[in-house]
Amino acid sequence: MNNIEICLAPKLIDNYRLDNKIIVIVDILRATTIITTLFENGLAKLIPVKSLEEAESYKKQGFLVAAERNGKKVDFADFGNSPFEFTPDRVENETLVYSTTNGTNTINLVRNANEVIIASFLNLRSVVEYLVKQNKDVLILCSGWMQDFCTEDFLFSGAITEKLIRKNNFSFDSDQVQSALDLWRIAKNDLSKYIKKLFQYKRLMQFGFKEIIDYCFQFNLSEVLPVMEENHIIDLKKIAPT
Amino acid sequence: MNNIEICLAPKLIDNYRLDNKIIVIVDILRATTIITTLFENGLAKLIPVKSLEEAESYKKQGFLVAAERNGKKVDFADFGNSPFEFTPDRVENETLVYSTTNGTNTINLVRNANEVIIASFLNLRSVVEYLVKQNKDVLILCSGWMQDFCTEDFLFSGAITEKLIRKNNFSFDSDQVQSALDLWRIAKNDLSKYIKKLFQYKRLMQFGFKEIIDYCFQFNLSEVLPVMEENHIIDLKKIAPT
Repeated sequence: MNNIEICLAPKLIDNYRLDNKIIVIVDILRATTIITTLFENGLAKLIPVKSLEEAESYKKQGFLVAAERNGKKVDFADFGNSPFEFTPDRVENETLVYSTTNGTNTINLVRNANEVIIASFLNLRSVVEYLVKQNKDVLILCSGWMQDFCTEDFLFSGAITEKLIRKNNFSFDSDQVQSALDLWRIAKNDLSKYIKKLFQYKRLMQFGFKEIIDYCFQFNLSEVLPVMEENHIIDLKKIAPT
Repeated sequence: MNNIEICLAPKLIDNYRLDNKIIVIVDILRATTIITTLFENGLAKLIPVKSLEEAESYKKQGFLVAAERNGKKVDFADFGNSPFEFTPDRVENETLVYSTTNGTNTINLVRNANEVIIASFLNLRSVVEYLVKQNKDVLILCSGWMQDFCTEDFLFSGAITEKLIRKNNFSFDSDQVQSALDLWRIAKNDLSKYIKKLFQYKRLMQFGFKEIIDYCFQFNLSEVLPVMEENHIIDLKKIAPT
């Protein structure tokens, strides 16, 4: 029986063992949703970096760079943090360097784990199918907000859990997982209504980002499976189509 | 309007400002439930200590000591961690030194805050009445389990929130608070059934602690209001009865 765990925020990651598990990184608003979009639109390789200094150094070497802090595009960058910027004509077959407030920091926290994948509502089915096939323990790592809990990543963890436990070979023994599952079961009945309660919903609506929010809560728009490989991320489906 | 926040686990406390707020410490299973019980049974003063070395040093000076680690009474201690040990004949008008796996560590984390109170289901009404009267911002600090989230403290935070927001002068803008409230609203309809899902329920049942669990989820058995004062805790109701 494979075990499911959820780490609610990056600051809690030291409470978990990373070995012999698949780490599933979640940052619904918006890093992992954007990474899914990038590969859906044909990106070849993504290099997540923590600091803006690193991002700028890559830019000087001629790389395409996406970088935001607190929701705003950084001056030197080619892209900000809207999923709609990353159109196929701009990213297909390219390598992109990517730095965000929360999401890429989370990725860097677990870069030494054996196996790290990137999940969002957009590629939920693809992620679940992969986890079932791999048949290993799963640790879902929520990027959260400002190093703390956020509801959208927690809900999504509940969504993954619901799908995994329908398979015979997944279970859990965790308050985090049970609570995520219970909250997801309330929220999913009317997700577009429930998300109006989110802190990030209210914050992003102030910037006029309604279309971006709606985009991030769409199911199964993409079949990609972004995985970490050394210091970069690639689409496993592109290498080994199933 | 007074703000409500919830810190889900001690490791996240650095994400919060502690000034000009009332910090409400929660460790339902079992430190804050036991502290409520102690004052209900007439204790004069409680000294929370972090390490067993400190606890043993107090013991050598002749103090009464309660100390447990991972649910088991420590050898040199007079009391372990069952609320039923602290009968009035043993604690009335006494000073007790107290050290537990989670709860007393949490208390020590915020001992420099302006105002710290101790809450459990047993004194929920008393806590809420006090918070309403004080009319200040509130930070509920969950002790959790092994430095991480636990559902019972989260649910209780939802219960406090539900009662506070019925008053005109409390609100929140926090994913933690919204999620705690939503989960509490599921759980409260059949609390004795819901708590069977808790990790700690299953763990404590293995030790045969059903009566202890049931005791910890009783509402309003006590009107005490334990508050932090320098390095110790006293019952505010005893000093200034309302």
